[in-house]
Amino acid sequence: LSWRVIRLDLAYEGTDFHGFAPQPGLRTVAGELALVLRRVTGEDVPVTAAGRTDAGVHAMGQVVSFQTQSSIGLPELKGALNALTGPDLLVHGISDADSSFDARRSALSRSYEYRVWNAPQPDLWERRRTTHVVESLDVAAMCAACDLLVGRHDFRAFYTHQAQDDLAKNTVCSVCEARWERDPQEPRLVRFSIEADAFLRYMVRTIVGSSLLVGSGRLAPEALGEMLQHRERTQAGPTAPAHGLALLSVRYPED
Amino acid sequence: LSWRVIRLDLAYEGTDFHGFAPQPGLRTVAGELALVLRRVTGEDVPVTAAGRTDAGVHAMGQVVSFQTQSSIGLPELKGALNALTGPDLLVHGISDADSSFDARRSALSRSYEYRVWNAPQPDLWERRRTTHVVESLDVAAMCAACDLLVGRHDFRAFYTHQAQDDLAKNTVCSVCEARWERDPQEPRLVRFSIEADAFLRYMVRTIVGSSLLVGSGRLAPEALGEMLQHRERTQAGPTAPAHGLALLSVRYPED
Repeated sequence: LSWRVIRLDLAYEGTDFHGFAPQPGLRTVAGELALVLRRVTGEDVPVTAAGRTDAGVHAMGQVVSFQTQSSIGLPELKGALNALTGPDLLVHGISDADSSFDARRSALSRSYEYRVWNAPQPDLWERRRTTHVVESLDVAAMCAACDLLVGRHDFRAFYTHQAQDDLAKNTVCSVCEARWERDPQEPRLVRFSIEADAFLRYMVRTIVGSSLLVGSGRLAPEALGEMLQHRERTQAGPTAPAHGLALLSVRYPED
Repeated sequence: LSWRVIRLDLAYEGTDFHGFAPQPGLRTVAGELALVLRRVTGEDVPVTAAGRTDAGVHAMGQVVSFQTQSSIGLPELKGALNALTGPDLLVHGISDADSSFDARRSALSRSYEYRVWNAPQPDLWERRRTTHVVESLDVAAMCAACDLLVGRHDFRAFYTHQAQDDLAKNTVCSVCEARWERDPQEPRLVRFSIEADAFLRYMVRTIVGSSLLVGSGRLAPEALGEMLQHRERTQAGPTAPAHGLALLSVRYPED
């Protein structure tokens, strides 16, 4: 039997997962996928994901790849995954990929969205996927602030470094889009869209936390450019809550 | 201290409630409201709701009334209710009502909405509030079927009678609207809107279950008229799942 590489396109709600990576005794996205893959293929199949989704973060277009020797048909495998995982994890697409395909390494860029519910009252159906902000936000100022982030920069100021991390970690990322917008149909919904080749830990949420200080008038838009210059996490704003964030899509050369 | 009648306008997601009415040891909407009212007013305050929401059913515009001798300010009481109830229960409005006001008895009509997600795959963010139907539905046929229900009729065929119920219960209701529509912006979403002066147990869900048999071609549209004539629950379709249903609004003479 030869090895094949399978690509999954999936969506999940992060609320009831302890993040993506397997953790003993906790429900995680990779753990739940591996459980079903072991049951269906009889193999211990480690999965690779395109984009970081920390605990509580959602994904609308996550891409996962894994190698298997199983000859199971793709429709059967997709059916088994959707039947045996929870209703908060949906496999939308499945395909045989090139043997060199790796969901993480082959990706050109990732796009994330952060949703803010900007109204006096929270919304019943948006509460699991938006962060509620009561103060009316100056979205134009937030947009001006994030313009300063577009381009190839060292994002160390927006990186939350942990004890086990490599001190020499490359913190340079190329951001090709970073934009705030008030939804034209639903003005209480304010969205941040960011696309980059790579993201650092809590980078989007720290950019969002810093932007919200601009949106509420506590900081001038230029402050985000200064944070970038300082390259010190302590200069940036707070990390915004996880549940407003979602991985929207991943770009590959072949798409 | 004199008695006052307070009206609450509230929304809740039914997922994590065991229905509206208090039940010992279970989380219910009335139970959660009474808990906070007891804490704030020191009184045991029974609340009356305008519209039936069985276990799992949501409400966007439920109206509740209660009597109290407390002189607490309305903004304070609203703040306490929103702070002390779960995030799945939101008090949107609070007002002093006429002493004769009773949320249930004063209501002229109730409007419910039933949401169906009509697509091969379920939707991550709609799954808690729509029923997933894979087969493509003939919405025009469903609409024609429900036209037959508009007017003043005996809805016994759509009433699920229980052991403790009064056998002589009045099962005549006046339905002023009963309409199916595919959402023009999101064609995977199919909605049923019904407004009537009164509703019987599982009435909307049984009309929906019967309509779905029409929408999938298993019954002709005329069948709903025949069910109405037969006045036998066994002639009607199955009860559709609770989580697709929401109480949208309640009409009062003073509004």
